[in-house]
Amino acid sequence: MEKSLVFKIEKKLPNSLGRAGTIETPHGVINTPAFIVVGTKAAVRGLTSDMVCDTGAEAVLANTYHLYMQPGEEGVRSMGGLHQMMKWNGPTMTDSGGFQVFSLGAGYGSNVSKILKEAKDVPLLKHELDEDKKPSLVEIDYDGAAFKDPYSGIIHYITPERSIEIQHTIGADIIFAFDECTSPTESRSYQREALDRTHRWGQRSLEYHHSKENSDRQALFGIVQGGRYEDLRKESARATAEMMTENGGFDGFGIGGSFDKDDLHTAVKWVNEILPEDKPRHLLGIGEPEDMFEGVENGCDTFDCVAPTRLGRHGTIYTDTGKIHITNEEFEKDTKPLNPGCKCYTCRHFTRAYIRHLHKSREMTGPMLSSIHNVYFIVNLVKRMREAILNDTFFDFKKDFFSRYKK
Amino acid sequence: MEKSLVFKIEKKLPNSLGRAGTIETPHGVINTPAFIVVGTKAAVRGLTSDMVCDTGAEAVLANTYHLYMQPGEEGVRSMGGLHQMMKWNGPTMTDSGGFQVFSLGAGYGSNVSKILKEAKDVPLLKHELDEDKKPSLVEIDYDGAAFKDPYSGIIHYITPERSIEIQHTIGADIIFAFDECTSPTESRSYQREALDRTHRWGQRSLEYHHSKENSDRQALFGIVQGGRYEDLRKESARATAEMMTENGGFDGFGIGGSFDKDDLHTAVKWVNEILPEDKPRHLLGIGEPEDMFEGVENGCDTFDCVAPTRLGRHGTIYTDTGKIHITNEEFEKDTKPLNPGCKCYTCRHFTRAYIRHLHKSREMTGPMLSSIHNVYFIVNLVKRMREAILNDTFFDFKKDFFSRYKK
Repeated sequence: MEKSLVFKIEKKLPNSLGRAGTIETPHGVINTPAFIVVGTKAAVRGLTSDMVCDTGAEAVLANTYHLYMQPGEEGVRSMGGLHQMMKWNGPTMTDSGGFQVFSLGAGYGSNVSKILKEAKDVPLLKHELDEDKKPSLVEIDYDGAAFKDPYSGIIHYITPERSIEIQHTIGADIIFAFDECTSPTESRSYQREALDRTHRWGQRSLEYHHSKENSDRQALFGIVQGGRYEDLRKESARATAEMMTENGGFDGFGIGGSFDKDDLHTAVKWVNEILPEDKPRHLLGIGEPEDMFEGVENGCDTFDCVAPTRLGRHGTIYTDTGKIHITNEEFEKDTKPLNPGCKCYTCRHFTRAYIRHLHKSREMTGPMLSSIHNVYFIVNLVKRMREAILNDTFFDFKKDFFSRYKK
Repeated sequence: MEKSLVFKIEKKLPNSLGRAGTIETPHGVINTPAFIVVGTKAAVRGLTSDMVCDTGAEAVLANTYHLYMQPGEEGVRSMGGLHQMMKWNGPTMTDSGGFQVFSLGAGYGSNVSKILKEAKDVPLLKHELDEDKKPSLVEIDYDGAAFKDPYSGIIHYITPERSIEIQHTIGADIIFAFDECTSPTESRSYQREALDRTHRWGQRSLEYHHSKENSDRQALFGIVQGGRYEDLRKESARATAEMMTENGGFDGFGIGGSFDKDDLHTAVKWVNEILPEDKPRHLLGIGEPEDMFEGVENGCDTFDCVAPTRLGRHGTIYTDTGKIHITNEEFEKDTKPLNPGCKCYTCRHFTRAYIRHLHKSREMTGPMLSSIHNVYFIVNLVKRMREAILNDTFFDFKKDFFSRYKK
C-alpha cells in the first residue's frame, strides 16, 4: 500500500511536546503547525478559493455531514470531488460528521437532549429504520447516528462505514473516523458509554477504510474523545493509538470534544503524551489565539475553526491588541487599517471607517473583507508560531504576543 | 474654468442616433457605450473593487441619498471621498437622490403614495420643518424633498443645492442634478407638475454647482424626465439642454424615469433627437440587454442598473441564450460553466452544479460568484456593442445576439 501521508518533524520545542514539521499529502504540503481554514459546504464563507490562497492558508477543511445533505454524495461525485468542485488545489480535510451528532443535539436512546425531547412532539415521517429506533433530529444507537433532515423530514442513518464511504466520495486528503462528540454537560456515565461507541466506531472506520483502494490516496485520522476526564482522555489516546488492521493504524489523530478554556492545555497534554510522536495531531474546532498557543506548545500540529469567518461576518476583528467590534462608534472616522501593520488584502486597501460603514450598511462586502482579514490573521499567527519554533524563539514570541493581545 | 469632462465621438452608427466615443474624467476614460456598475453605498454588492475592475468595468455609480444617510457627509469626508473610501481609482458617478424620492414612495403634498398613506398613521417625530409640511417617509414641496429616516425617525430635507453640496463632498467625477423621478402610475397632471419641479431644481442645481470650485473637477449632468408623454419628454429635453449659467450648461445629460419595455426606444429617441449631440447621455437605471441595444441605437452613451448584482444574488444568471435560474434542478449535475465560452472569473473556474450547490446551501460565495459573472456579462455586452459600432457591424451583432438570446 502506498503512503497517503508523510509526516516529518523538523524541529522540537525544548521541554515541551511542541514541534514544527511537514505533512505531505497528494495535493501538497502543510507546513505545521498550521491553521486549516473551514469551508463547511465546500466554500469558505465570504472568500473565493483564490482569496483563501492569498491569505497564505495551505489547507481547507469541509464537513461530511453538510456535503452529504447538500449536494449529496452523487452531487459531489458528479462535480469530481471536493478539490475539483471548489477549485482548491491544495490539501483538504473532511471531518466525519461526528461533531454534528453533538451540535444537532444527539442523545443515546430517547431520553437525553433538549432538541430530541422537543422533536418528540413532532410526528415522525416515514423512514427506513426500525420503528423502535424512533429517531427524531439525531438519535444514536450501537451502530451509528440517525439524522432527520429538518427540511425534507427524510431520515438518514450514518454508520462508521457510511461516514468513511461518503468521505471517500468527497475525496479529501485527510479524513476522520466517525465519532461521537459529546456535550460537556453530559454525565460521566454518559461520557463513558459514548467513548465506547467512539472507540468501536474508530476501529470500524479504520477497517472499512483499509478495505478500500481510497486508502492509497486518503489518510485517515482517528479521533480521541473523553471530555474533561483524565482517565477517559488517556484511555482514549491509548485505545486510538493502538487501533490496527493488517495494514497498520491511523495516519494521524484528531483530538475532539468541548473543552473549558482553562483545562484545554491539560487535556491536550494528557493525550499527546500518549499518542505516537511520529504522527500528526489535529485539534478539532479550536482557533482562538490563546488556545492555539497552548495547543502548539502541547504537541498539536493543525487546527481548524469557524471563528475567523463567523466573527468576521458579524464585524468582530482580530488585531494585535485583541478583538475589536468594528461597528462601535469609536471607529466611525478611524482611517487606520483594521490591524495596523497587517499585510492582508483588506488592511492594504481599506480603513476601519469604511469597513464599519459596510457593516452598518449591511453590505456583504463588509463580511467579505472582514473575513479575509480574520483568516489572514489567524493563519499567519500560526505560521509565526512555526517560524518561532524553527528559530528557537517560540516562548519569546508567545510572551511578546500576549504583551499586546488581550483575550 | 477648467474642463471637468471631455466627450469625443469616435464613430457614428449610420442612419441612427448611436455613436461610440470616450468620456475623459479626472479619474480616467470611459469608453462608450459603457455599462456603469452600481455600488449604491460605495460598495458593489458581492465584489471588491479589484473584482469589479477584473470584469472590465470602467466606472462605478454610487447613490447620494444612501451615502448621505450612512456614513453621512462627514463620514464620507473623513474617509477622503468616494474614490478613496472604496479604493476605486477609475471614473465614478453619483445619482442625485431624485430616484429615491420615487422609490421611497413620494407624493406631492399629502395625498399620493401608498407608503405615505401608511406612514401617516405613524406619529411624527420632531423635525426642523414647518409643522404644516408634515413629511412622513418622503414628501415633496416647492424647494425639495423631505425624507424620514425609517430607523432614527429623523427627518432630512434635500433641496437641489443640498443634493449638489452632498455630491461635492462625495466627490464623484460625474454628478447629477436633483430631480423628481415620478411613478408611471401618476396622472398626466401630476407628471406635468413634477416636470416643472425637475426643471426648476435642474436650473438651481446648475447654478449652485457653477458657484463652487468643485465644478472644475466634477461634471454635472442634467436630468430629462417626462414619463411616457411625447410632448413632456421633448419639452424636458429642450428645457434641460437650454439651462445655462454664465459658465455654460450641463456637461451631459441623464434620461430618467420609468419606461414600458415597448416604448423605451421611442422615449429615448424623442429626447436624444433634441439633446445636443456633443454631450454624453446616460440612461438611468437601465441594464437589460434588449433595453441597452435600444438605448445605444438611439444615442445613449452610458447605462447603470442594479440588475446584474441583484439577479446574481438570487441565482438568476445571464447567458448567451437568456437568463437561467441556477437553482433549477436541471443544473444539479451540469458541469458546464454558467455561460459556456464566458471568460469571467466564475466561468473560468466553476461549474453550474457548484454555483447551484452554493445557492442551495445559502453560502455567500454563491451570490459573490454569480454577481461577478453577471457584471462581467453585462459590462462586456456593452463593450461588444462599442466594438461593433467601431467595426461597422452593430446591426449584425444585434441580430446575431438575439438569434440566441431569448428575453
